[in-house]
Amino acid sequence: MPLVVVGSVALDTVETPNEKRENLLGGSGSYFCYAASYFTPVKLVSVVGEDWPQEHTELLQSRNIDTAGLQVLPGEKTFHWSGRYHQNMNQRDTVDVQLNAMNRFDPVLPESYRRCQFLFLANDPPPLQRKVLRQCTGASLIVADTMDLWIDREREELLALLKEIDGLVLNDSEAQMLTGESNLVRAAHLVRELGPRFVVLKKGEHGAMFAGKHETYVMPAYPTANVVDPTGAGDSFAGGMMGYLAEQGNFEPETLKTAMAYGTLTASFTVEDFSIDRLKQIEREDLDERLEEYRRMLSF
Amino acid sequence: MPLVVVGSVALDTVETPNEKRENLLGGSGSYFCYAASYFTPVKLVSVVGEDWPQEHTELLQSRNIDTAGLQVLPGEKTFHWSGRYHQNMNQRDTVDVQLNAMNRFDPVLPESYRRCQFLFLANDPPPLQRKVLRQCTGASLIVADTMDLWIDREREELLALLKEIDGLVLNDSEAQMLTGESNLVRAAHLVRELGPRFVVLKKGEHGAMFAGKHETYVMPAYPTANVVDPTGAGDSFAGGMMGYLAEQGNFEPETLKTAMAYGTLTASFTVEDFSIDRLKQIEREDLDERLEEYRRMLSF
Repeated sequence: MPLVVVGSVALDTVETPNEKRENLLGGSGSYFCYAASYFTPVKLVSVVGEDWPQEHTELLQSRNIDTAGLQVLPGEKTFHWSGRYHQNMNQRDTVDVQLNAMNRFDPVLPESYRRCQFLFLANDPPPLQRKVLRQCTGASLIVADTMDLWIDREREELLALLKEIDGLVLNDSEAQMLTGESNLVRAAHLVRELGPRFVVLKKGEHGAMFAGKHETYVMPAYPTANVVDPTGAGDSFAGGMMGYLAEQGNFEPETLKTAMAYGTLTASFTVEDFSIDRLKQIEREDLDERLEEYRRMLSF
Repeated sequence: MPLVVVGSVALDTVETPNEKRENLLGGSGSYFCYAASYFTPVKLVSVVGEDWPQEHTELLQSRNIDTAGLQVLPGEKTFHWSGRYHQNMNQRDTVDVQLNAMNRFDPVLPESYRRCQFLFLANDPPPLQRKVLRQCTGASLIVADTMDLWIDREREELLALLKEIDGLVLNDSEAQMLTGESNLVRAAHLVRELGPRFVVLKKGEHGAMFAGKHETYVMPAYPTANVVDPTGAGDSFAGGMMGYLAEQGNFEPETLKTAMAYGTLTASFTVEDFSIDRLKQIEREDLDERLEEYRRMLSF
């Protein structure tokens, strides 16, 4: 089944301890839809400026990603994010953020998007996420991401959103911030009690935790020796997860668990190079092969 | 097969955000041997002072733990450790350390210990660990633990030890400190290249990683909502792991992996109460039941 994602599309400058790269294809929406495209047709909603390279749009289209919802704003520049990673790649500083076109992002879903059953609201301001919700009245699975900024500044709107969605994906530290609880199992379930039927905690290099009403489980990250650029790992995780759910057309507990595994492995490829460069080199069978390896790794 | 452990036995004072408890049975050797006792007969080598409660010795003996190697030093007091946990229980401060009898610890293995094939050197100064090694010439599997203090102050002796052992168990931050490498997969393998055939990284609430020549895998921690006191989790992990290996009498890759799982689950019980109080309430079948649950959790 097709999957709609609303999220940012950006040009990134990323500096790791080994290399600096400029004007990379980035943004939560880009990583998400590319990751999800291994599983299902994706419909992207986002906004860019006049400087957006047409080749990026063509690249997405070549992956069966519908860009009818990608607005190009005249007279604007594309959202630009700059980040610098520490020697320990789990830590990074945001060096610069130029929202540019994102400042005027007013997501209007094309008619062809509105009947989609699978919807992902990538990390945007909660009022904007809620506005999208109202346009997707037929969605049967709505999952959102969020971030510390909105927990801090848009808590009321975020709490309202949580009552309207089925699943929330967020970082472990964000769950701790939202709930004031340091134990991650308890924090995840406290977030779940705020509304969503399930919560997925992203723990970076330590994997991800699933908290549903009747089950809690943890999936470790795939052990990657060669982390080149962790940017987009979380969005790729969400893309792989949601992509698999949409492909299967259901969100039964067993499907959700396999989706968590696919999300984990999609992210494990993303971090092996800058931007989506590593993803561009792989096919669905590479994900399936790594899934089998991962399954063996976790069986004893 | 019997398993020999050389490690500390202590009386602990532990303060968590909710409670303060004094004179608890503690020490790496205590946690290790109690955890291992679910699987195999254990022979403890340690030292205590005159203040050591005889009931602790009897408790260990009731678990088929041989205390012939537990020396009681006249005129000495037992090693005393005090620690305080932060609101986030993954962080703690050592408030006080009174080595007392441990200062004069000169491990001499009883004759009946020396032919044991499974040996664990808990966290002691590397010169002392090496001294024990020389008394156990028939050991077929020697695994050691270490800590930041010895990496800092006894690096040469530690490097010599690494060439004499089969496996090393250490915290993730210690592996980073020893190798200067922040990527945990690379750090684990760099430690392995210093001598041992395998390295186990303990990642606290995030589980453990195994690094052997031909395989790398991660096992997540069992998701525990109710962490009362994390003290001894790492030693219980090692005890469960080594206990299972000694029970099976081999250290084939598949046995090692199941041993990692048992270690993980033994530790998950330890943190549910102070000292070994939770372990005292469980039997082998409780571990086996949780193992089956854990196996289901990791299968998809």
